Amino acid sequence: MTTREQCAALDAADPLAHCRARFDLPAGTIYLDGNSLGAMPANVPARMKQALEQEWAHGLIRSWNDADWYPAPQRVGDRIAKLIGAGQGEVIVADSTSVNLFKVLVAATRMRPGRRAILAERTNFPTDVYVASSVAEMTGCELRCAEPDDVVAAIDENVAIVSLTHVNYKTGKRYDLQEVTRRAHEAGALVVWDLCHSAGAMPVDLNRCEADFAVGCGYKYLNGGPGAPAFVFVATRHLAAVRQPLTGWHGHARPFDFTHEYVPHAGIDRMLTGTAPQLGLIALESALDAFDGVDLDDVRAKSVALGDLFIALADRELMRLGCTLASPREASRRGSQVSLAHKEGYAIMQALIERNVIGDFRAPDILRFGFAPLYVRYVDIWDSIAALKDIIETDAWNTEAFRTRKSVT
Amino acid sequence: MTTREQCAALDAADPLAHCRARFDLPAGTIYLDGNSLGAMPANVPARMKQALEQEWAHGLIRSWNDADWYPAPQRVGDRIAKLIGAGQGEVIVADSTSVNLFKVLVAATRMRPGRRAILAERTNFPTDVYVASSVAEMTGCELRCAEPDDVVAAIDENVAIVSLTHVNYKTGKRYDLQEVTRRAHEAGALVVWDLCHSAGAMPVDLNRCEADFAVGCGYKYLNGGPGAPAFVFVATRHLAAVRQPLTGWHGHARPFDFTHEYVPHAGIDRMLTGTAPQLGLIALESALDAFDGVDLDDVRAKSVALGDLFIALADRELMRLGCTLASPREASRRGSQVSLAHKEGYAIMQALIERNVIGDFRAPDILRFGFAPLYVRYVDIWDSIAALKDIIETDAWNTEAFRTRKSVT
Repeated sequence: MTTREQCAALDAADPLAHCRARFDLPAGTIYLDGNSLGAMPANVPARMKQALEQEWAHGLIRSWNDADWYPAPQRVGDRIAKLIGAGQGEVIVADSTSVNLFKVLVAATRMRPGRRAILAERTNFPTDVYVASSVAEMTGCELRCAEPDDVVAAIDENVAIVSLTHVNYKTGKRYDLQEVTRRAHEAGALVVWDLCHSAGAMPVDLNRCEADFAVGCGYKYLNGGPGAPAFVFVATRHLAAVRQPLTGWHGHARPFDFTHEYVPHAGIDRMLTGTAPQLGLIALESALDAFDGVDLDDVRAKSVALGDLFIALADRELMRLGCTLASPREASRRGSQVSLAHKEGYAIMQALIERNVIGDFRAPDILRFGFAPLYVRYVDIWDSIAALKDIIETDAWNTEAFRTRKSVT
Repeated sequence: MTTREQCAALDAADPLAHCRARFDLPAGTIYLDGNSLGAMPANVPARMKQALEQEWAHGLIRSWNDADWYPAPQRVGDRIAKLIGAGQGEVIVADSTSVNLFKVLVAATRMRPGRRAILAERTNFPTDVYVASSVAEMTGCELRCAEPDDVVAAIDENVAIVSLTHVNYKTGKRYDLQEVTRRAHEAGALVVWDLCHSAGAMPVDLNRCEADFAVGCGYKYLNGGPGAPAFVFVATRHLAAVRQPLTGWHGHARPFDFTHEYVPHAGIDRMLTGTAPQLGLIALESALDAFDGVDLDDVRAKSVALGDLFIALADRELMRLGCTLASPREASRRGSQVSLAHKEGYAIMQALIERNVIGDFRAPDILRFGFAPLYVRYVDIWDSIAALKDIIETDAWNTEAFRTRKSVT
């Protein structure tokens, strides 16, 4: 039987324990929602102060050159590349995940002109399906939606693109990125991977898996701040063929020539559209310092251990109280979160947040707990389960205030 | 003959003179590039510090509710609406100008299904033409490009959309927004106005002009910071018919229901795509405080006076030195900038910047000077002309360093 003392011992032995001090976390709060908004790395405010007071206020327009604002999308992209198994010059930071998804879906469709289907997954994050649906409409393709377990079987000779999220936002269920990519390629299709729930939480190894395209956001496990800019990956072998539709001037081969004809940049810059969101980029870039010297295998090992501990304690304390496990039990099939289902999940989560244990709720009944290995401790798992147990056992959730509290996140 | 003392007297009598103190400007620098990147309002760093250290770090995910992050795109949009003659609920802040342009061009094309041409202007800012070209390709339309003076005559019964920038980025030439809109409507076309070089620099009066759609950026005369998020305007009468293609979850009627089918929000929210770039939004929102209590008619009057003064002094001092006027002489046809042409413009501008007078250069020979009336003074115009005169007269620009200096802006 695991004890809190054993959890504390695991923390003492944790090779990533020192990373927690890299974050500015509120005292007395357990934060298990880094899969929605990552915590703030402590170095961000000083970097932002410099960006505002020196670079913007005093450098003014000159900072596009002198403060290296102009190459920031490429530079930050190269840093993210190292976290997702991509090469230098294959990743760039731009826009939002949704916008980047539109770009790569259209580009990929154009690379398979004889095929008229986009294959999506029914339970994928809604934006991914909405965007795929819009791309299908604009390109004259059919949108096919398969259940998670039927995706691979649904790839046929008419499928141009398979659009999937590596780790499901709701259940934390993880696809075998390498195997699905291999099967899609065998059938002649391209794959677009959404890495929102995996980048920064585990090794991804895009190139080892021969991935084609990927997108992902900067504000979850990468800790880039609310609404941080997103990233897009294009495998080098595809770059020359990629024609994305959001042809803004920053994707041009020579933006400052201001030519009338659009000529895409030879490299990953062609995925850019408008002027880069510098303040968001600067926050994201400085946030990535939290990964300095961190081995992503250690990150994954701790993520698995935290998830396994959560499930073991939930088995012992919560399942008899009406909770069920909504994530895969096998760590190899999970991302870095564990979801529980409970019919009163909404009010329970509100009561839990009131006690400064922060997860989130996804309709209709999912309590979602994300484990960001750089700052979540084993004792946090213990204390969260204890709080959940107490809230459910004592009906502490059962108040009008908790049942009706408005929350948009 | 105007003197520097007279310029100082104009500053002393300027009803907007007090606004200059709202900005953090570097000592000894004359900044005439607010049409590229607006200066930093002095209140931004404190607001950003609060957003980082309180809202993100300690509020964490709760700040989407508790710090009113979620409604920021609408709230900031409503503030910008007041500066461009739009109503509440007609403007929202999102993405970049280029991305928003793609959205409205596709949406507008869908509203005129029988018409198969998009009419653009050959000398428009390149992004606008690139994006129109991409939209034309994706929607099966023809892209027609007319010279500036031929645009109105080119509107025929096959034109679905006229896509124009209110004030030209290079020459500062301004269209008659009301008259062009009227003529387009007479021919059954819709108009998309790019307000990048007019929002915040003059009254725009979108609704009085019966405008259909507009887009614009947050980082020029609105002073929102480098790469600030952009805005998009849709006239209320069109909202229900607008189907834009970047169907991210934040444009959904009920984003947090996570439904499989995309249902556009009933209001301006349907123009949203992904998660809002909060740090950029917060900077932009606090920057807009610089307009508190400011009458845009005063802004325009000062802008005209600064431009007229610049031209008068340039006539007297610079035209005999190889400069020509590249902007309309009549204030009624100008925006808030004056451009000069000189065959050695690139090196001259580098020499000018070296003396802390900051304008910018646009190929092949344009020296561009923007007058942001909230912080540019009459004496700044005097001193800029004096510096230009000295640089050209003494050949101070004619060095290898100035001729070959690398600049991306």
